[in-house]
Amino acid sequence: MSELPTLAEAADRIRAQTLSPVELLDRCLDRIDRLDGRLRAWVVVDREAARRAAQQLAIEAVRGEFRGPLHGVPIGVKDIIDVAGLPTRAGSPLRENHVAAADAPVVAGLRRAGAVILGKTVTVEFACFDPSPSRNPWDPAINDAPRHTPGGSSSGSAVAAAAGMCLGALGTQTGGSLVRPSTYCGVATCKPTYAVVSRVGVVPVSYHFDHVGPIARRIADLELMMRCLPADDDFGPRGAAAAPSGELDFRRQAIRPPRLGTLGGFWEETADDNIRQATHAAIERLTAAGAAIVPVETDVNFSRIQPMHRRIMGVEAATVHCEDYRRRPEAFGPLIRRLLDEGLACSAVDYAAALAELRGYRRRVARLFDSVDALIVPSTHTTAPPTLETLTGTSEFQAPWSAAGAPVASIPSGLAADGLPAAVQIVGRYHDDRRLLAIAQWCETVFDFDNVPPIAREV
Amino acid sequence: MSELPTLAEAADRIRAQTLSPVELLDRCLDRIDRLDGRLRAWVVVDREAARRAAQQLAIEAVRGEFRGPLHGVPIGVKDIIDVAGLPTRAGSPLRENHVAAADAPVVAGLRRAGAVILGKTVTVEFACFDPSPSRNPWDPAINDAPRHTPGGSSSGSAVAAAAGMCLGALGTQTGGSLVRPSTYCGVATCKPTYAVVSRVGVVPVSYHFDHVGPIARRIADLELMMRCLPADDDFGPRGAAAAPSGELDFRRQAIRPPRLGTLGGFWEETADDNIRQATHAAIERLTAAGAAIVPVETDVNFSRIQPMHRRIMGVEAATVHCEDYRRRPEAFGPLIRRLLDEGLACSAVDYAAALAELRGYRRRVARLFDSVDALIVPSTHTTAPPTLETLTGTSEFQAPWSAAGAPVASIPSGLAADGLPAAVQIVGRYHDDRRLLAIAQWCETVFDFDNVPPIAREV
Repeated sequence: MSELPTLAEAADRIRAQTLSPVELLDRCLDRIDRLDGRLRAWVVVDREAARRAAQQLAIEAVRGEFRGPLHGVPIGVKDIIDVAGLPTRAGSPLRENHVAAADAPVVAGLRRAGAVILGKTVTVEFACFDPSPSRNPWDPAINDAPRHTPGGSSSGSAVAAAAGMCLGALGTQTGGSLVRPSTYCGVATCKPTYAVVSRVGVVPVSYHFDHVGPIARRIADLELMMRCLPADDDFGPRGAAAAPSGELDFRRQAIRPPRLGTLGGFWEETADDNIRQATHAAIERLTAAGAAIVPVETDVNFSRIQPMHRRIMGVEAATVHCEDYRRRPEAFGPLIRRLLDEGLACSAVDYAAALAELRGYRRRVARLFDSVDALIVPSTHTTAPPTLETLTGTSEFQAPWSAAGAPVASIPSGLAADGLPAAVQIVGRYHDDRRLLAIAQWCETVFDFDNVPPIAREV
Repeated sequence: MSELPTLAEAADRIRAQTLSPVELLDRCLDRIDRLDGRLRAWVVVDREAARRAAQQLAIEAVRGEFRGPLHGVPIGVKDIIDVAGLPTRAGSPLRENHVAAADAPVVAGLRRAGAVILGKTVTVEFACFDPSPSRNPWDPAINDAPRHTPGGSSSGSAVAAAAGMCLGALGTQTGGSLVRPSTYCGVATCKPTYAVVSRVGVVPVSYHFDHVGPIARRIADLELMMRCLPADDDFGPRGAAAAPSGELDFRRQAIRPPRLGTLGGFWEETADDNIRQATHAAIERLTAAGAAIVPVETDVNFSRIQPMHRRIMGVEAATVHCEDYRRRPEAFGPLIRRLLDEGLACSAVDYAAALAELRGYRRRVARLFDSVDALIVPSTHTTAPPTLETLTGTSEFQAPWSAAGAPVASIPSGLAADGLPAAVQIVGRYHDDRRLLAIAQWCETVFDFDNVPPIAREV
């Protein structure tokens, strides 16, 4: 078997005992050996622990014993999320020695479901803005003079999943940190409804916007991972109460062509030609397959979300880092420093006013779904820009949904005119995450995009 | 019928057609005429609208048509909550002309259930600290030289319900504004789980602590009102998702003697002798009736909640009032001015740190219920103090639960040694409000306290 199985395919084969967890792990390690010198997706690969886990899971599989939906599947974990025994470096020199005593609940959930935790993937410094060393597997010049950013901040998770160095990965999003790198690298991701998935054991950026989510090649892969992620335990049982119903049998659900809302305005005007054309093409294919595409009227001014988002993120990031920042400002990169300076200068009243604005925005977003099943908008306003050294892109198209807290699935729709991947975000009703994934899977089937980058085919 | 029916009794009699909504309204208006000169519970009594409503509801009742559980029941509304066509003065000279265009959803919910909205009850200025003119119906000197505060900020609602000028009333709590006046006035109240009941159309004090709740003589009365209060619509469907189940048939539920946790420490040390004795007596009676009383171990330091609560409340109140306050500082009372000054001087990072502390506190409170059905603590640390002109009391014993957001029912347990009412708070699991009310009703039956104040018996 030389082709690259998706996570869901690999999980099925392991269960059918036609693929061994050890063989699958070896294939991932082989890809890491061949590709990661160029792609730089990993901070640490814990080969020994992964091999021991895979061997144990292989023994169980032979006996017909399976721990859960991810039995034997190698998974990468963004390096701001705790994995017991490994440092959580968060892309910062300040955290060289922060060895995690315990798994974050999301990691523990994956392990319980049988996942092999393969290692820690590269993150942008404290999951903010200053670029990481990771590279974009779709960059045409990847082998000599790479120029296109893989996006951030979950750079390593997106790169590793795209190149098949693992079958799925955990990332986080505060602005655009799941959707942007996933789009630039041609993989799928979902950002769950706000506060549905546990954030314990994750280095915080901004309480009101931080989300943990999975990255993988296909929506079915994401759905398997989502099933294993425990609920947020903030505010007593609220997280659990709000968790999506487990009743819906995702894989078997016969989804009818959905009714998808478009937003026009800001989304049309901000997208560049590459993305505008790719999005129109994607929508045409969905329409041809039977989807109803409906313009949604709204008084929400999406171009005004960014300052509110930045103010809240700046204050909350400053709250997390203020002690370290006052002690060792030089240990922070230039982009995060600007953010922290803004946060430190803000008054409580201005921050509280931004939080009130956020609540009003969330109420208005909730009404966008009155007449449609989900919204469809481009995932990014450009394809991966040639800013490898300077910027991981910007979050114009992702931050509105991080702020809203509505669930998002991002699906690569194909290659744009410039040969780089484009994707669409399907945005669903609050707390209806599983239905959103089913809708996104319907769209993915229509797009039928083979999202393995050329570099990953060589292997 | 000369005795004073409770809300639930009156509702039953109206349904049985042995009491007419018009007769009931007249009885309330008669009490207002005789008592409110001394008690000062009302800002405005809307006699004409109330009479029209009662007449219409009486016609329907004769036909055997009943709108809902509150058909024909006169209800008072704290004057920070919008009632269509009446000003929402919020106890401030700044709001003389703020006539509400529409009912707040909570008021609309009561009306839909058949309530007669009788008028607006006195609130402390902007529901904060500076005393209102209302007086305590239990004050032994009520007829000549009243000295004991009725508590605040829902002063008028507690006084009106205690004196039978209405059968129930809406109030709000940010620190102790439902539980403290209800305790001082000898009536029952419940503060629902945070963000379960709508706050739209209510003048805000502090987003993270504001709760709307009912005040009445008995728990069964509160339960009827709670059924009619619509869910908070913040963050899409979250409020609704978190709303207590309507399945439990509260009145018929056979509650077994509950397992109640005590907290000792801060709660024992802060209470004065009157309250300590009254609480011990209450707990002894519950024990004799079969309740299990269990000391709960906790690392929560309840004496440290107050500064965190005050910081958040100050910032959020300043956010609400900053424009008016900068323009007309002299229009604000001395106690709220100090609060607003603190809020305006706070940095965003310090406020955000307080919010993070709040979240950690809520998680720890959630764990207090691991081994008990509910907690029992005194409602106040003293009975109504003789500070009618200067202070409505302080919120040491109420603010911890406003901050926690856990649901609370406060029940008068009897008269303390000084002849003034004492009460206990039963604190329940998050989102389990209906079960909490059932437990509180069990306790109330054990206490069997006739909570009609002497002044209300004269009428």
